Amino acid sequence: MSRPLLQLALDHTSLQAAQRDVALLADHVDIVEAGTILCLTEGLQAVRALREQCPDKIIVADWKVADAGETLAEQAFGAGANWMTIICAAPLATVAKGHDVAQRCGGEIQMELFGNWTLDDARAWYRTGVRQAIYHRGRDAQASGQQWGEADLAKMKALSDIGLQLSVTGGITPADLPLFKQINVKAFIAGRALAGAENPPQVAQAFHSQIRDIWGE
Amino acid sequence: MSRPLLQLALDHTSLQAAQRDVALLADHVDIVEAGTILCLTEGLQAVRALREQCPDKIIVADWKVADAGETLAEQAFGAGANWMTIICAAPLATVAKGHDVAQRCGGEIQMELFGNWTLDDARAWYRTGVRQAIYHRGRDAQASGQQWGEADLAKMKALSDIGLQLSVTGGITPADLPLFKQINVKAFIAGRALAGAENPPQVAQAFHSQIRDIWGE
Repeated sequence: MSRPLLQLALDHTSLQAAQRDVALLADHVDIVEAGTILCLTEGLQAVRALREQCPDKIIVADWKVADAGETLAEQAFGAGANWMTIICAAPLATVAKGHDVAQRCGGEIQMELFGNWTLDDARAWYRTGVRQAIYHRGRDAQASGQQWGEADLAKMKALSDIGLQLSVTGGITPADLPLFKQINVKAFIAGRALAGAENPPQVAQAFHSQIRDIWGE
Repeated sequence: MSRPLLQLALDHTSLQAAQRDVALLADHVDIVEAGTILCLTEGLQAVRALREQCPDKIIVADWKVADAGETLAEQAFGAGANWMTIICAAPLATVAKGHDVAQRCGGEIQMELFGNWTLDDARAWYRTGVRQAIYHRGRDAQASGQQWGEADLAKMKALSDIGLQLSVTGGITPADLPLFKQINVKAFIAGRALAGAENPPQVAQAFHSQIRDIWGE
């Protein structure tokens, strides 16, 4: 199991504000995510600008694609994204088409898990070639009080066992990390916990230090 | 049951190309949709530009929102959208928050049906106040040969019975319309069937004429 990465999620409504946070944090994270809100307000320019600002980072287009997998993957990877998200509710044909384009472009697809998905779906995604999924408490679910619990961890373990690497998100702080010790975590995704902190690089360091303590150097 | 409307879906990757089709078709449709592809490439500017180009039409932001319902609804309705789509996989909290903002702005939420949703979900959406859903064969599902069938029509009927008005999409042509006679159809959504036609206004007229024949003047 490799050491989890740290991903900065940018859910700003303005590219300028997002890029200010990137300037502060790019040296302290492994992955920079053009969040859905940012992409819907700023368009493809958000992905392009982040690629330019962070030539050496993994860039994620968090588009939660539900359809038109080929066209959208061409747009995302063409603009410089390394990974693109597809929503679990998407038809399998969309996943397969997105994955085909990803492979051709040297990119990867991440399945975004929301609502009613099943382990059979996860096995089908794996069979198309997809190797990543994102597990989260949504912002709204989180705000309405939903906590990380045994049920979440059991589902994550089952997804790991299928062969999917998981990125984990939803109000995660460094103190939460030991919860995920048994899981094949690709990345921890933090947005406001990082960018909204008084000293963002310090919080990033706290994440890395916890990750090293739990998963080793 | 009121007469179904006709919706032009704009799934272009460039706003300029989309606006050319709008110029041809705006007088012949009731609703203009800023499609997901267009919104992810051009950002909020797509919604703003269509509102400006079509001051009297219903404008849909087809964002398939999965999270952050409040922020995204504020963005969509603030930019001039009348309706915003939420993906069925979204947590109920997201639907409720999106609907609250919609009500405050005089807008409406449409639930986008993809993958694993249930009639219990539909009842829950109805209870939050949502009154519209979009039923479709996805582009990719359609391309892989999935047809309209009895199972689709039975599900649409069940959704109608719950009280949801349905917009129907996925490679629909005027010849398909009689299939949906028993359904509470809010709108028929056509993209390439309209904009890609040799004579787009003529195809729009064929839709309207079929709608009048089936649902009355």
